[in-house]
Amino acid sequence: MSVTGSPGSTASLRSANQQRVVDVLRSGDQVTQADLARQTGLAPATVSSIVRDLASAGLVTTEPGSGRRGTTVALAAAAGLVAGVDFGHSHVSVALGDLTGTLLAERRTPLDSGHPCDAGLDAAADLLDEVLDDADAKFDSLRCIGMGLPAPLTDGIVRSSAILPGWVGVNALDAARQQFGLEIHAENDANLGALAEHRHGVARGHANSVFVKVSSGVGAGIVLEDRLFHGSGGTAGEIGHLTLDESGPVCRCGSRGCLEAYTSTGALQAMMHTQLPGAGVDEIVAAARQGNVSAVRALEDAGLHLGWALASVVNLLNPGLVVVGGDMARAGELLLESARIGLRRHALDAVAATPVEASELGERASLVGAVLLAAERTELTAV
Amino acid sequence: MSVTGSPGSTASLRSANQQRVVDVLRSGDQVTQADLARQTGLAPATVSSIVRDLASAGLVTTEPGSGRRGTTVALAAAAGLVAGVDFGHSHVSVALGDLTGTLLAERRTPLDSGHPCDAGLDAAADLLDEVLDDADAKFDSLRCIGMGLPAPLTDGIVRSSAILPGWVGVNALDAARQQFGLEIHAENDANLGALAEHRHGVARGHANSVFVKVSSGVGAGIVLEDRLFHGSGGTAGEIGHLTLDESGPVCRCGSRGCLEAYTSTGALQAMMHTQLPGAGVDEIVAAARQGNVSAVRALEDAGLHLGWALASVVNLLNPGLVVVGGDMARAGELLLESARIGLRRHALDAVAATPVEASELGERASLVGAVLLAAERTELTAV
Repeated sequence: MSVTGSPGSTASLRSANQQRVVDVLRSGDQVTQADLARQTGLAPATVSSIVRDLASAGLVTTEPGSGRRGTTVALAAAAGLVAGVDFGHSHVSVALGDLTGTLLAERRTPLDSGHPCDAGLDAAADLLDEVLDDADAKFDSLRCIGMGLPAPLTDGIVRSSAILPGWVGVNALDAARQQFGLEIHAENDANLGALAEHRHGVARGHANSVFVKVSSGVGAGIVLEDRLFHGSGGTAGEIGHLTLDESGPVCRCGSRGCLEAYTSTGALQAMMHTQLPGAGVDEIVAAARQGNVSAVRALEDAGLHLGWALASVVNLLNPGLVVVGGDMARAGELLLESARIGLRRHALDAVAATPVEASELGERASLVGAVLLAAERTELTAV
Repeated sequence: MSVTGSPGSTASLRSANQQRVVDVLRSGDQVTQADLARQTGLAPATVSSIVRDLASAGLVTTEPGSGRRGTTVALAAAAGLVAGVDFGHSHVSVALGDLTGTLLAERRTPLDSGHPCDAGLDAAADLLDEVLDDADAKFDSLRCIGMGLPAPLTDGIVRSSAILPGWVGVNALDAARQQFGLEIHAENDANLGALAEHRHGVARGHANSVFVKVSSGVGAGIVLEDRLFHGSGGTAGEIGHLTLDESGPVCRCGSRGCLEAYTSTGALQAMMHTQLPGAGVDEIVAAARQGNVSAVRALEDAGLHLGWALASVVNLLNPGLVVVGGDMARAGELLLESARIGLRRHALDAVAATPVEASELGERASLVGAVLLAAERTELTAV
């Protein structure tokens, strides 16, 4: 929320009130002026005046209803569009969205897992041209880009990561600003997944939720009191490196027996390397569904360990819901059922029934989150 | 913060501005009107008008300085006093404080560890009379009481706890309201310790900090973005039941190998029961200081396990500081040095240097927090 004017002044009050109206419109629901007054708590006359200002700045459109209070208000297409860019270990996805965070077009392309940052951004720029074409939109209409990266980020710089080796040490914000010539906001991909599930997915309505992305790496995005929580240095959510067994396998992070060693696509493949040599996650899941008892057991063990780490999370944070996403979430209940058992075994009674649900947005979660991030960070003010 | 008037109205703006001024005064620092304007961001004329309103309601006193802007402003003694009541496993402490949270008098008395709730509250009421006498104050001046309990609380009801068996299932808020006839706010004692260290102790200036109370039980209070975090059901901070070894000792919580089994006063005494049979924490610490190598090792092992659990906390939450309090904190560096080593062994590199410091307020932390809670929850408004 951006508020102009010195705090406590009537100018800042006007700006804050305008922002309340815009925030309701950003939710994308169809609203009348009466709804806006109810949802913002502002007086109907104040709402009318704000809507008039926004309309004359071209930021909202109005449709007549029964009387002025029945007038329907929506963000105008002319208010602009945003894009989301989501980098994975070996792909990049790009989506075009409007300022309510609704996706208008999306595309995905594979990337070499060791791709240098420049090549990744070039591929993203190509996809952006394509989605603009798909939606019959122009680059000039873009206001802002949200970017997701599967790595810890501090001040826009990609920190040591085995997932995205070609980006380590790069100032991803600067590089993307140069590539696109637009305002860029970057987030860890698990944080974007948490944002997406909180705004548009299974965590909607939960003030506190944790989204765990289980793919080749394991990370969590934490939403507390309806906002993404980053921690003091921006690295909050590193669930993948909770120690489960201090004598377990040595981890790339310098510790031993981390969750990632037991629950990740690599750990699952390693468990199955004798039974199903060379099989990927989807093949192992398919085998389990067809009754391969080894595959069932491997997923079960991955789930039990995941549940153990989730127990630490719910003991410490007591969220209303845990959401599991990432590649491993495609195993569905084969993973989640044992995750719930693991959680119950290791959590305090008061929080042992914390629901653990599959991501509703699936592999699109981070991409949807990137669009939402861009939409929420786009300033809309009519002075 | 309490704000009257409908949101976005000028009445609510006036109330919010008044609250900004009161919040600065509550910090207890000596301030001039010019300081108030600077710290609240309000216009000097607005500050003058608010101070005039508060003064005529008897809530603040003013002392002339150089011009109106040099006038010194402070909360008036007549604005009222508060009390803090802190229940431990086998004691209760009571303090009297003013609305800045400054303690004016305090007393402590032992309690039977199995005491029923009523007996505990009677003892607290006796102490309250005594501290009022000590400070030459009257019961009528009390505005509010903050109460700390070493147990999880939801909606004021004490949940299952081995620490306070005589209180389980009791609605502590209702019982205390009946005993004192005053507004009561209750919190888990670790949460109060976190609040106290954040406002007046070693965590001052850290937006995100975690206070771990290591006594017969082990619990944490979590301050995120300068506010106590409670979680969706009010049970956040249960660090004592993080599983460190799934084949470890069975715990009262229904899990195995919890932190409490390795790092708590009971665990320390159990480790030393052959070498120093019947010794309490203070005797074991004294022995370690005199070179008893078994006592040194026992404290070291307790610290390493504490550090392991702290690593989970800093991986997940990335706080700026971890504060260790409770009875075990009296071991000082004998415990903390190995806690830092344990943290470094199990935490990600980016957060491995998170400082771990001893509580500055020591065994008074929860009591100071109880007074602060009461002071912060006391409404001060001049209409």
